[in-house]
Amino acid sequence: MKKIDKIRIIPLGGLNEIGKNLTLIECGKDIIAIDCGLAFPDEEMPGVDYVIPDMQYIIKNSDRFHAIFITHGHEDHIGAIPYLLRDINVPIYATRLTIGIIQNKLKEFNLENEAELIEVRAGQTVDLDTLSVEFIHVNHSIADATALAIHTPCGTILHMGDFKIDVTPVDGEMIDLTRIGQLGQEGVTLLMMESTNVARPGFTMSELKVRDSLRNIFMKAMNKRIIIATFSSNVHRVQSIINLAAEFHRKVAVSGRSMVNVIEVADQLGYMSIPDRVLIDIDDVNNYPPEKVVVITTGSQGEPMSALYRMAYSDHKIVEINNRDLVIISATAIPGNEKLVNRVVNELYRSGATVVDDSLAEVHVSGHACQEDLKLIFGLVKPKYFIPVHGEYRHLKRHEELALSLGIPGKNIVVADIGDIVELSDEGIKKIGTVPSGKILVDGLGVGDVGNVVLRDRKHLSQDGLILIVAVVDEYTLTVMPDPEVISRGFVYAKENENIVDRIKNITVKVVEHCASEGYDEWIFNAKTRLKDEVTKYVSEQTKRKPMIIPVIKVI
Amino acid sequence: MKKIDKIRIIPLGGLNEIGKNLTLIECGKDIIAIDCGLAFPDEEMPGVDYVIPDMQYIIKNSDRFHAIFITHGHEDHIGAIPYLLRDINVPIYATRLTIGIIQNKLKEFNLENEAELIEVRAGQTVDLDTLSVEFIHVNHSIADATALAIHTPCGTILHMGDFKIDVTPVDGEMIDLTRIGQLGQEGVTLLMMESTNVARPGFTMSELKVRDSLRNIFMKAMNKRIIIATFSSNVHRVQSIINLAAEFHRKVAVSGRSMVNVIEVADQLGYMSIPDRVLIDIDDVNNYPPEKVVVITTGSQGEPMSALYRMAYSDHKIVEINNRDLVIISATAIPGNEKLVNRVVNELYRSGATVVDDSLAEVHVSGHACQEDLKLIFGLVKPKYFIPVHGEYRHLKRHEELALSLGIPGKNIVVADIGDIVELSDEGIKKIGTVPSGKILVDGLGVGDVGNVVLRDRKHLSQDGLILIVAVVDEYTLTVMPDPEVISRGFVYAKENENIVDRIKNITVKVVEHCASEGYDEWIFNAKTRLKDEVTKYVSEQTKRKPMIIPVIKVI
Repeated sequence: MKKIDKIRIIPLGGLNEIGKNLTLIECGKDIIAIDCGLAFPDEEMPGVDYVIPDMQYIIKNSDRFHAIFITHGHEDHIGAIPYLLRDINVPIYATRLTIGIIQNKLKEFNLENEAELIEVRAGQTVDLDTLSVEFIHVNHSIADATALAIHTPCGTILHMGDFKIDVTPVDGEMIDLTRIGQLGQEGVTLLMMESTNVARPGFTMSELKVRDSLRNIFMKAMNKRIIIATFSSNVHRVQSIINLAAEFHRKVAVSGRSMVNVIEVADQLGYMSIPDRVLIDIDDVNNYPPEKVVVITTGSQGEPMSALYRMAYSDHKIVEINNRDLVIISATAIPGNEKLVNRVVNELYRSGATVVDDSLAEVHVSGHACQEDLKLIFGLVKPKYFIPVHGEYRHLKRHEELALSLGIPGKNIVVADIGDIVELSDEGIKKIGTVPSGKILVDGLGVGDVGNVVLRDRKHLSQDGLILIVAVVDEYTLTVMPDPEVISRGFVYAKENENIVDRIKNITVKVVEHCASEGYDEWIFNAKTRLKDEVTKYVSEQTKRKPMIIPVIKVI
Repeated sequence: MKKIDKIRIIPLGGLNEIGKNLTLIECGKDIIAIDCGLAFPDEEMPGVDYVIPDMQYIIKNSDRFHAIFITHGHEDHIGAIPYLLRDINVPIYATRLTIGIIQNKLKEFNLENEAELIEVRAGQTVDLDTLSVEFIHVNHSIADATALAIHTPCGTILHMGDFKIDVTPVDGEMIDLTRIGQLGQEGVTLLMMESTNVARPGFTMSELKVRDSLRNIFMKAMNKRIIIATFSSNVHRVQSIINLAAEFHRKVAVSGRSMVNVIEVADQLGYMSIPDRVLIDIDDVNNYPPEKVVVITTGSQGEPMSALYRMAYSDHKIVEINNRDLVIISATAIPGNEKLVNRVVNELYRSGATVVDDSLAEVHVSGHACQEDLKLIFGLVKPKYFIPVHGEYRHLKRHEELALSLGIPGKNIVVADIGDIVELSDEGIKKIGTVPSGKILVDGLGVGDVGNVVLRDRKHLSQDGLILIVAVVDEYTLTVMPDPEVISRGFVYAKENENIVDRIKNITVKVVEHCASEGYDEWIFNAKTRLKDEVTKYVSEQTKRKPMIIPVIKVI
């Protein structure tokens, strides 16, 4: 067998955007994946539900593709698994809670029997033909998160996953800095580390801070009902809240599908311990006095139709907000969600509630490493090579600056883009080419059928609406039969525009009959083009708007 | 003449949303306005350019409406003036720079000769029949900003405008705390104060901090070209940048229409002093070595087509970004603009630039009072009554909480909504009714013609696009002539959906001919309704999407 003296790292996601993490490691003929996540669409993708990585390179090389290793159970690390499983079936390795969350997800897709999910514990190593993968415990905003050390014939690659250093986690263990330090001593060839908080100085605060802040708030909220919105996957946060409720002799009700699901999974798998007789059914909330209740709910991002949103807009079947409610938003708004969250907070105030969010108290901490945490990992690992991952381009570049400032030479750092093939060998690290990569849009049941033209049309329609023109032409006389129909949507009310509509009808008759009279074969095509141009010009002059013009010419 | 023992305060904007500030004071038969601004649309208003207050109450009472007093020259305080001037002409009082900015704005609307603009200085008082209005100097992110003391037969109303306390302003004077304190001693009946930063603890930082940070950056940027994006209206910031450029022997070029305009106005009116031979034309930038140039530009909010945006996307006619560029974003992203700004920063990095923003250095400070500033004003003014203004509902409620904590009784505080009539008399302060109020949407040349139906249609179109069905029916046989036409936009590519299109055609023939055969007069209406329902149901089953269905039935 030929000696393996080169390794390839191929990021298919997780760079230059938030989410859809997916990195391939090619070692000899073998390929493995780290994570397989989705991203949420931004305002440039109206109507799109999810974004997943282009995975055609995996499918083309499926005979060489052996396993998926998942660092933790967040959507941006697991969400694309069901889409990959449609084409490919390889074992998926992850820790217990992560497996539980993946199983729940596969059920939604009726794929629960299609996957080989293999549970590992932090500290364990999975041996494959040419490489082995070691799971290392880290702290993050979800329990059971891991980093991965990939031991290869070309040395060890340490992929940190998503992590923070929490020296006082409220539950579970501190990040395994000892093992990370040992790896550093043994020698780490390549470090791949997340870049989310690279612009934030200092250390990331401990989850303990949140529990202390919440306890203060519970203490002062003696005669109020407490409603707390947080990320459902933050199992430790939810556990803290349940413990505090028990401490203050309050019952806990849970609202929101994903919150109910996660608590169920985490409880079953032993990641939470819920004291007896603390949980009550959400339907029974109103049987208790306000000061005896805590409601844990989804909706911390102001998501329309989430439980908190429905409470705020008086649309929740049980919880009616009033002036005896104290609402805590134990989260921070993900970029792009600020306005949604603010709107919900305004509505909660309108219904009489008092609202505490992270602008008023330390009710949230980040799950990602800040500058000092990152530096500490660099100090322990002392990697030869470095690839910053998990961030927009500005994050990756700033992470590169940080690495340079710590003495890693510029030629040993690669700021990659998705699809890049990064080759690691005795000669160094370099980009040697690309594989197909990109964003696949998921809209309803369609995967990949919404492309740039469709998005452009949706954006155009959302800006100025449309004007539809239907002209029926007599095939013998080539005249337009009265009356051409002009219909608008998203433009302005038709009745306020009778003059404009009449004028468009005149233009239509004139243009269509003129083109028809020219006698070319493709006169209908010409007529449509000219009709679009002339109507666009006329409407723009009249209104300074540019609705989409859709001409339909039927020859009968 | 009847003694005036009641005053009415009627906010028509500036509450429960950002922008479009407009408050009426009714004193006896006389009405005056404070500010007359616009707001920028949010994502719920696709395609809308601006939002202005509903001003019908002013127009209905135009015989009693005497003057507009403007606190400062920001769009959210002056932007609706041209729309009001179309119906009404009263004197507009403001300080010099504010007048200059209003004049520029009126020119764009060809209204420069329609308005009576009257310049006042801070410290001056304007006397009207029943009341007088005193201008008081304050600090803000635009020069020449003022608070207004309205002296009435029912006591003094102090409206703080937008302000901060800057004890070391880089130019001009500190806020006139002495006069504010005197007013407090003389007795202020009602304080109206902005709420923007009510959730932020501490004092707002001085503009001097920004100059110091910028100087540090200039010092370290010796061999680089410096490009600084900031708000064009922040005259003091721009002055600081120009001074620093002169100090470091760099030339200054200006890019972006609004930046050029404001510097011109501010320079003409004496609000800036530009050292000789510092300014160069933007067209000449490339004649100087990078280290000798500073470019001041618009686009700090990432606005598409702004100068900085065009630089980032290699679309600027002169400035080409490269690795000798240091770009400073001397601003903070206004809520909702975060993603736009981040995208521009990513592109700048991609072109090789280094980018410094307020996450990395103190290159921006807020123009609005934080909690301690607000408390200081309360302490000086000791108002009897209080109305929090300029903020979303959550801001107003938190400002109310702050006032309560300072000892102002709850019955003396009114959290108003736009359109409320707040009456102030010997008996106290209370809401006594409402006047018509709301948002008027400006889209292109149309003012108020875009309403909820149009916005709803635009949102619907942007989510899933549309399917258009055209069926031509023979008026004698009542059969659909082959082939019905099915066109989609913003849905999916037609070719990927041939089956769906064929099936829709079948549904169309079946539904239309069935309805036609039933023989009711309104069969076309029935057929359209049923066609919409059946196609929506079918498409939703097939794709989980709900495009807008537009049926057109022509009987020929």
